[in-house]
Amino acid sequence: MDGRIAARLAELGLTLPPPQPAVATYVPYVVTGNLVVVSGQLPMLSGSLTCTGKLGAAVSDADGAAAARQCLLNVLAHLSAACEGSLDRVARVVRLGGFIACTPDFTRHPAIMNGASDLVVEIFGDAGRHARATIGVASLPLDAPVEIEGTFELDEALDA
Amino acid sequence: MDGRIAARLAELGLTLPPPQPAVATYVPYVVTGNLVVVSGQLPMLSGSLTCTGKLGAAVSDADGAAAARQCLLNVLAHLSAACEGSLDRVARVVRLGGFIACTPDFTRHPAIMNGASDLVVEIFGDAGRHARATIGVASLPLDAPVEIEGTFELDEALDA
Amino acid sequence: MDGRIAARLAELGLTLPPPQPAVATYVPYVVTGNLVVVSGQLPMLSGSLTCTGKLGAAVSDADGAAAARQCLLNVLAHLSAACEGSLDRVARVVRLGGFIACTPDFTRHPAIMNGASDLVVEIFGDAGRHARATIGVASLPLDAPVEIEGTFELDEALDA
Repeated sequence: MDGRIAARLAELGLTLPPPQPAVATYVPYVVTGNLVVVSGQLPMLSGSLTCTGKLGAAVSDADGAAAARQCLLNVLAHLSAACEGSLDRVARVVRLGGFIACTPDFTRHPAIMNGASDLVVEIFGDAGRHARATIGVASLPLDAPVEIEGTFELDEALDA
Repeated sequence: MDGRIAARLAELGLTLPPPQPAVATYVPYVVTGNLVVVSGQLPMLSGSLTCTGKLGAAVSDADGAAAARQCLLNVLAHLSAACEGSLDRVARVVRLGGFIACTPDFTRHPAIMNGASDLVVEIFGDAGRHARATIGVASLPLDAPVEIEGTFELDEALDA
Repeated sequence: MDGRIAARLAELGLTLPPPQPAVATYVPYVVTGNLVVVSGQLPMLSGSLTCTGKLGAAVSDADGAAAARQCLLNVLAHLSAACEGSLDRVARVVRLGGFIACTPDFTRHPAIMNGASDLVVEIFGDAGRHARATIGVASLPLDAPVEIEGTFELDEALDA
């Protein structure tokens, strides 16, 4: 990795994790035209989830926001692979989809998802300002508390 | 706002609300190529939700469908801003994502989401006929009963 | 239907079902540029659901994976209609969205969704390798156990 965004990551004291292998028969990302679609990522860190359980129950809001942040780093790890290591090619973060595993009475989903949204803006600046949808779900794979997927626009089509 | 769609809104007795500010660090919409991606919208009206709670419990089907309709109007308010006031530039409503907060035994999601789907077809005619996915979720931000996001195709790229 | 993918379907002993009519006022698919967006499909077979209920409760994992497979076939039926019968025009399966109706303690969503993911790769080969997001939801229309939506890239824009 090199370039402006790599320098920004270093400045923020962040290291992208190695891209997580897909849990199943899908792939971590697909490039179509100048868009990169990254599969839903869990808060994996060094091979295990940062926490398990649900918001509004076993998982605190702080741990949920940290999990969202870790999901985002895993999304960026795949995005970086799609960009052959240069995140400078990202013209815009288009959309993040945030899935929060929670109890039916939980209502603070936006604050949890901000763990990811704030970080992506810290890293990419204005190009990181994205559309998003955040919802509360019944449960997630492996009992993860958060899952995040992303769509990104590159400065030009990779196959151009 | 002016143009054919503005006239149709007036004919239907509809006024688009002022665009709702994003609840968090994301933005209400992103334009990529000739697509506009609008963030998930809640049924906000004049600064508060039209109702709260869940379908199959405190929220009636009629109130749920009205909430879906309000979500759609909020989506269109942002779309209109993306189009600099002219919804005539919308070539096609591509996809609506509908999230219905409900009890596990609720099964009438399509009827709720029709509050939005019927309205967008009333407004845009054939160009309003869209793909959609409607699901029942555990809970939504601020205890909203419905959240709707949208993807739209413009007649040409805005940055062209 | 004709062509290479039709032959592959025959080889696998698969027949695409007739495209399911939309349950409501939306349409089964929208084409935008060279992308086809297919609405969320339920496991309908010959006019009724292959099973109803939730994973982790009344629906076994095997029945859930079979339902995911049926959802995928229904997605492909619409995709085939979008391609005017020739699935050979599909350049890439871009993304599948998988919604699993389940109990809050269910954690095996990836295995259920693999019913769809494995099949689409069997049919399309490398072009079938897709990004995906799989989540557990509170409930689905008609008490379906699984719903799947899809985005596909064609080899050229249909309106070109």
